[in-house]
Amino acid sequence: MSAIQKNIETASENYSASFTKGHLALPPAKKYLVLTCMDARIDPAQAFGIELGDAHVIRNAGASARDGLRSIVISEQLLGTQEIVLVKHTGCGMLTFTNDDAYGLVEKNLGSDAAAELKSRNLDFLPFSDLERAVNEDVEYLRDTKLVPDSVTISGWIYEVETGRTRRVV
Amino acid sequence: MSAIQKNIETASENYSASFTKGHLALPPAKKYLVLTCMDARIDPAQAFGIELGDAHVIRNAGASARDGLRSIVISEQLLGTQEIVLVKHTGCGMLTFTNDDAYGLVEKNLGSDAAAELKSRNLDFLPFSDLERAVNEDVEYLRDTKLVPDSVTISGWIYEVETGRTRRVV
Repeated sequence: MSAIQKNIETASENYSASFTKGHLALPPAKKYLVLTCMDARIDPAQAFGIELGDAHVIRNAGASARDGLRSIVISEQLLGTQEIVLVKHTGCGMLTFTNDDAYGLVEKNLGSDAAAELKSRNLDFLPFSDLERAVNEDVEYLRDTKLVPDSVTISGWIYEVETGRTRRVV
Repeated sequence: MSAIQKNIETASENYSASFTKGHLALPPAKKYLVLTCMDARIDPAQAFGIELGDAHVIRNAGASARDGLRSIVISEQLLGTQEIVLVKHTGCGMLTFTNDDAYGLVEKNLGSDAAAELKSRNLDFLPFSDLERAVNEDVEYLRDTKLVPDSVTISGWIYEVETGRTRRVV
C-alpha cells in the first residue's frame, strides 16, 4: 500500500469516528453548484463557505464550463440545482501552456501511441491566456447553451491563491 | 445579489482574514490526484485527509474517469502527479437513471431546441448500475489508456455517505 493510500485509510478512520451527517439527502439542500479548478491550493468548502450537503462541487482543469457541461446538466435536470457559481483562480496552470505544448509533451513523455490516442480522441485541453476574460467567456458559454435554462442564476468569480480571497467578476 | 453569492462573500472575508498559505506552489506537493463525485455529501479534504496544496481534486457526476481524462492528462503531463485515487460513493445519483431518462427529461423540461443541442453534442451522461463494478471498470479504463503511463499508481475506493467511511475496492 502506498503512503498516499495509507493516509486515506487513517483519515477515513478519524473522519468516520466522529461523523454525524449520515442522514443528508442526495439533492443539494441549497440547490446550487460550484464549478471550480482541480488546483491543489483550493479548498472549496472552506474558501467558499459550503456546508456538507448544500451544493454540488464540480472540479476540472481550469474550471472549464465546457468540460463541466455533462455534470452541470445532471446537477440541474436530475438533482434540482438552480444556481451556478463559477470560480477560476490566479496562478492557474491553464495560463501556462497551449494545446500544441500539451500534445508535444504527451508525444515526448508517452510516445507515439499515446500521441495517436490523443489525436483520435481530438482532446481539447482548453487552456486560456487571460483569466478575467476566461471567466467572462465561460459565463457567456453557460448563458448561451440551451442546456442551461435562463432561470438559472450564474455568477463568475476569481479566487486568489495568494490571499485566500474570492472576488466577483461577473 | 443572491443569498448564495452573499454567503460566498462572507465566507471569503472570514477565510482570507486568517489565511496563511499564500506561498504554496502550483504543482501538488504530494504528487497525486483524487478523482471523486460532485455529490454534495462529500468533503474530499476532510474525508480523504488532503492538506491544502497536496493533491489535485477532480470532481464530476459519478467520478467518471472518462469524463475526467482531460484533467488527468494535464495533472500528470504538465503538473507531475504520479498517483490516481478514484473514489465513487454509495447512494450516487448516477445509479438512478439511464441516458434515455436524461435525454427525455431535457426534452420535457427544456424543450426541443435543448434536446437537439444535446443530440448534436452526442453527450453521454455515463450513468452506471452497479457501484463496485463501476469502480473496477473505471480503474481498468485508466490502466488501458495510453494517456496514463504504467508507472502511475491507481487505486479505486468507495466512500459511504451513510458512515463517512472510505474503503478500498481495487
